[in-house]
Amino acid sequence: MLLKGIAAASGYAIGPAFIMEEHHTEIERRELPAGEVEAEAARLQAAVQQAMAELEQIKEKTAAKLGEHEAEIFATHILVLQDEEFIGQAVQKVRDESVNAEFAMSEVTQMLVDIFSSMDSEYMRERAADFRDVSKRVLTALSGQSGTSLNDFEEAVVLFAHDLTPSDTAQLDRSKVAGFATNIGGRTSHSAIMARSMEIPAVVGTQNGSEAVKTGDIVILDGSSGIILVNPDEDTIKTYQEKQAKYMKRQEAMKLYKDKPSITADGHEVELVSNIGNPQDALGARNNGAEGVGLYRTEFLYMGRDNFPSEEEQFNSYVAVCETLGAEKPVVIRTLDIGGDKELPYLELPKEMNPFLGYRAIRLCLDRKDLFKTQLRAILRASAHGNVKLMYPMISSIVELRAANELLAETKAELDAEGIAYNKEMEVGMMIEVPAAAIIADQLAKEVDFFSIGTNDLVQYTMAADRMNENVSHLTQPFNPAVIRLIKMVIDAAHKEGKWAGMCGEMAGNLKAVPLLLGLGLDEFSMSASSVLSVRVLLSRLNREEMKQLAEEALNLETAEEIQYLIVDRVPAIQELTI
Amino acid sequence: MLLKGIAAASGYAIGPAFIMEEHHTEIERRELPAGEVEAEAARLQAAVQQAMAELEQIKEKTAAKLGEHEAEIFATHILVLQDEEFIGQAVQKVRDESVNAEFAMSEVTQMLVDIFSSMDSEYMRERAADFRDVSKRVLTALSGQSGTSLNDFEEAVVLFAHDLTPSDTAQLDRSKVAGFATNIGGRTSHSAIMARSMEIPAVVGTQNGSEAVKTGDIVILDGSSGIILVNPDEDTIKTYQEKQAKYMKRQEAMKLYKDKPSITADGHEVELVSNIGNPQDALGARNNGAEGVGLYRTEFLYMGRDNFPSEEEQFNSYVAVCETLGAEKPVVIRTLDIGGDKELPYLELPKEMNPFLGYRAIRLCLDRKDLFKTQLRAILRASAHGNVKLMYPMISSIVELRAANELLAETKAELDAEGIAYNKEMEVGMMIEVPAAAIIADQLAKEVDFFSIGTNDLVQYTMAADRMNENVSHLTQPFNPAVIRLIKMVIDAAHKEGKWAGMCGEMAGNLKAVPLLLGLGLDEFSMSASSVLSVRVLLSRLNREEMKQLAEEALNLETAEEIQYLIVDRVPAIQELTI
Repeated sequence: MLLKGIAAASGYAIGPAFIMEEHHTEIERRELPAGEVEAEAARLQAAVQQAMAELEQIKEKTAAKLGEHEAEIFATHILVLQDEEFIGQAVQKVRDESVNAEFAMSEVTQMLVDIFSSMDSEYMRERAADFRDVSKRVLTALSGQSGTSLNDFEEAVVLFAHDLTPSDTAQLDRSKVAGFATNIGGRTSHSAIMARSMEIPAVVGTQNGSEAVKTGDIVILDGSSGIILVNPDEDTIKTYQEKQAKYMKRQEAMKLYKDKPSITADGHEVELVSNIGNPQDALGARNNGAEGVGLYRTEFLYMGRDNFPSEEEQFNSYVAVCETLGAEKPVVIRTLDIGGDKELPYLELPKEMNPFLGYRAIRLCLDRKDLFKTQLRAILRASAHGNVKLMYPMISSIVELRAANELLAETKAELDAEGIAYNKEMEVGMMIEVPAAAIIADQLAKEVDFFSIGTNDLVQYTMAADRMNENVSHLTQPFNPAVIRLIKMVIDAAHKEGKWAGMCGEMAGNLKAVPLLLGLGLDEFSMSASSVLSVRVLLSRLNREEMKQLAEEALNLETAEEIQYLIVDRVPAIQELTI
Repeated sequence: MLLKGIAAASGYAIGPAFIMEEHHTEIERRELPAGEVEAEAARLQAAVQQAMAELEQIKEKTAAKLGEHEAEIFATHILVLQDEEFIGQAVQKVRDESVNAEFAMSEVTQMLVDIFSSMDSEYMRERAADFRDVSKRVLTALSGQSGTSLNDFEEAVVLFAHDLTPSDTAQLDRSKVAGFATNIGGRTSHSAIMARSMEIPAVVGTQNGSEAVKTGDIVILDGSSGIILVNPDEDTIKTYQEKQAKYMKRQEAMKLYKDKPSITADGHEVELVSNIGNPQDALGARNNGAEGVGLYRTEFLYMGRDNFPSEEEQFNSYVAVCETLGAEKPVVIRTLDIGGDKELPYLELPKEMNPFLGYRAIRLCLDRKDLFKTQLRAILRASAHGNVKLMYPMISSIVELRAANELLAETKAELDAEGIAYNKEMEVGMMIEVPAAAIIADQLAKEVDFFSIGTNDLVQYTMAADRMNENVSHLTQPFNPAVIRLIKMVIDAAHKEGKWAGMCGEMAGNLKAVPLLLGLGLDEFSMSASSVLSVRVLLSRLNREEMKQLAEEALNLETAEEIQYLIVDRVPAIQELTI
């Protein structure tokens, strides 16, 4: 039997399956006599205190075992338990309705879970899991037990569960759990992120894995491709054991590259940096050997709340990233890219027929000057505390770039008048993600300090194919000759003006794309932290001059398939590194 | 007072306003004794017969006065009255519910109007007006009256109405009605189309014009800019009288160009052709001096029905166009471009988050080979009866072009095997409307006979701005330097391979764009029939070599505004012709 899910954390796990049963304790509504209500409210508050104490413990253990970054989720969970909107409401419900604590807690949790689950943003949907996790812990405390650990196994097993909470995951014992699979979850769910940090191979979103597999079945879990083989034959097991050994060897070898420069075999150096969504990610970037941040997606600061973050909040977040990385490391902060698939309920934007072609990012910021200038102030102020660079998203004409730069100049003048410090030499760049911007890159290059190519959107617009629509997914081809030509135009245009060109789309971390991008002259590669080391290893095996030649040949090809074939054929190291 | 609406038919009307009152006769539901039901059904059928007879008369008069083309709408209305789904249902309702004919008729009409009005396609929404118009005529007949004419005015008036039906419009007496304005309607509503044919200046979509203006107010209606001035001062009237005189003179002068070649002052000839949506439009194209059809939008054949048109139906429509124009005139037939804003309910396509970036046109046709090959057969067969050329929409990669050409070769082989005639030398081309196609035009040019640039979509994708979304309408700039560069790339690529390049987006009929496009080397300009003559006059005043120089200068500019300013400044004829 073969199960398919989402590749969440790479590596291979081979061993007996262990199915984690869900303990569905039905929660009943009980009405309480008036005299018992206050005692019940106190009981709930005590359970919350116990849960918080447990989380503190887990947090400390996790920090010691995995690092501060991985422990951050438990700090978040403690904050959730301190949130009046959440626990306060549950306590209030006990009092208002004279009901038992379990019922009040689960009702309020369900309401919040429903709200978050229905949101369009994947990021927000996954926050629903935080409420579920925390609530489960409080309910366990109410039942008089303490949170259980998942490590009562005799030998290393492959764990199957409907879902694992981040605290379940953090407490997994690497010597007892060879890998895990969950029925739900996505690549960016906390458990998936944690699995990557812990280097536990994991597949999520298998839909029915925990039902299809029985405890004791022998399984092979391939966390790189998202595939699980159940009760395979001996030959298959042997093949995968070999793959596993190679994989482990490669992982060990890669770690040697953590603090090395990003340099080709013939001595050409580029910059390998990371895409982050919040200050905590910066630690992950550093731990994975990133030389800085090539894309700080500030929109997550604005999401999951009911009003705009203040200048001070933003400033603190930006400075936190600089402090984590060290003052000399570059941090490219992208201004608010909201709209499209990322909604902000409190902005009250109209529903659009084609949100990807709509009112978003810089288009909105140029209209909402108050909002935009608050962010510009925060970024400028942060520039006094690190190597901050500012980047505009979705610029499609030089008129927009000039309008944004004018607001930046205004903001600088205001800071000057107030005597507030900022880096007067701060670099200002723009994303290239709209085809028009790529086509007039020569003109734009005169008025920015750098470009960063956002391939996800650039591909989608160039091919006129929604990257979320599976009916046209065959057309969202980063290797399409048209896309490659645009990338070349952008890099050449930047270099002609003595500026640098980076890339922060998924393509930059794709091993197949790296040789071509190197050959085209890309200066900076920004990717998810987990890709940095393998890209650095690949670069060390490449020869810049050969890749220039490769790029020239690729530019003469007619299909995405031919281009990919050429690269894989010419660079055997790609296949070695993707084992 | 100034009213703004949508410019529907150009020209100036100056005179007293006449407000057409709506006769809202409330229709009551009356139940009939069982014995009277059949007589009521017969009364409804008699009224339908009377309405049909009236429509026959109007149709003949219109054909004599305005031409067959303009009379076609009444043939359509007669067909509507013969439609069992419509009248049959109303008669059935009289019988089933024992109700009066007026009530049954208006209920069934309302239901159909509601269905059509709620459709996403503007074309379908406007079909709702046909049902309203026809129903009104039947209700008038039921009331024992005959359809009234609108021409009981003493002097030439400017007519204001909530809405005018096509039959209202067709019956307007040009000597009594100087112009008209309606509160609702769009540029492609039948009344607007008819006003252009009748050369009655018209403004539609004024929202509240018929309420804001009083009968007897002196008004100036500017059908070119969509503006209405109410009770203006003497000076303004004088200014507009001068404009009107110039306009009339220009119109007369333009008519002289109807059968002239499309040639510049220095003898460079291009092709001026027309965009059409159905065989009737071909007559309008011919009457306006078009030298053929540059874009036959076949999707209208598929719309407003509940199943696919047969090969025979399609063949007949395609041949009808060839016959109307004459066998030697080129007719470029575009294969089905459904999806996006054009829906076909019977195709049952999934709802998409970004339909403009979705599963449409060639993407769908390559999956639905049955559907596509039926159309290819019909087009190939029609190619034996005229100068037919075939064109694929929305090609974004060479792989798609090759797949389409393969299906075409298959279809040809089938026709060969069946001994069915077609033009073996039929030209095959493609639209350039996806940025990727423009960027790899050099590669595509080797495998097609021609390109036709669809600027509406090309601009929308290049700028990543939905052309229907008013929040980003400032970004849908056909004169944006990025768009102009893409157009140049496409034309140059075609010429390098000895192929021709046309344009069938709105830009081709835009007087401001024509000098630039001529300078860039465009070979064929396809536009709405009403623009052909003014473009031909403009071309006759242009010097090709000068326009090449202009295009070169334009390519060095940085904004859409600068480019437009350069053109208008360098070509004074544009302003003369837009008076």
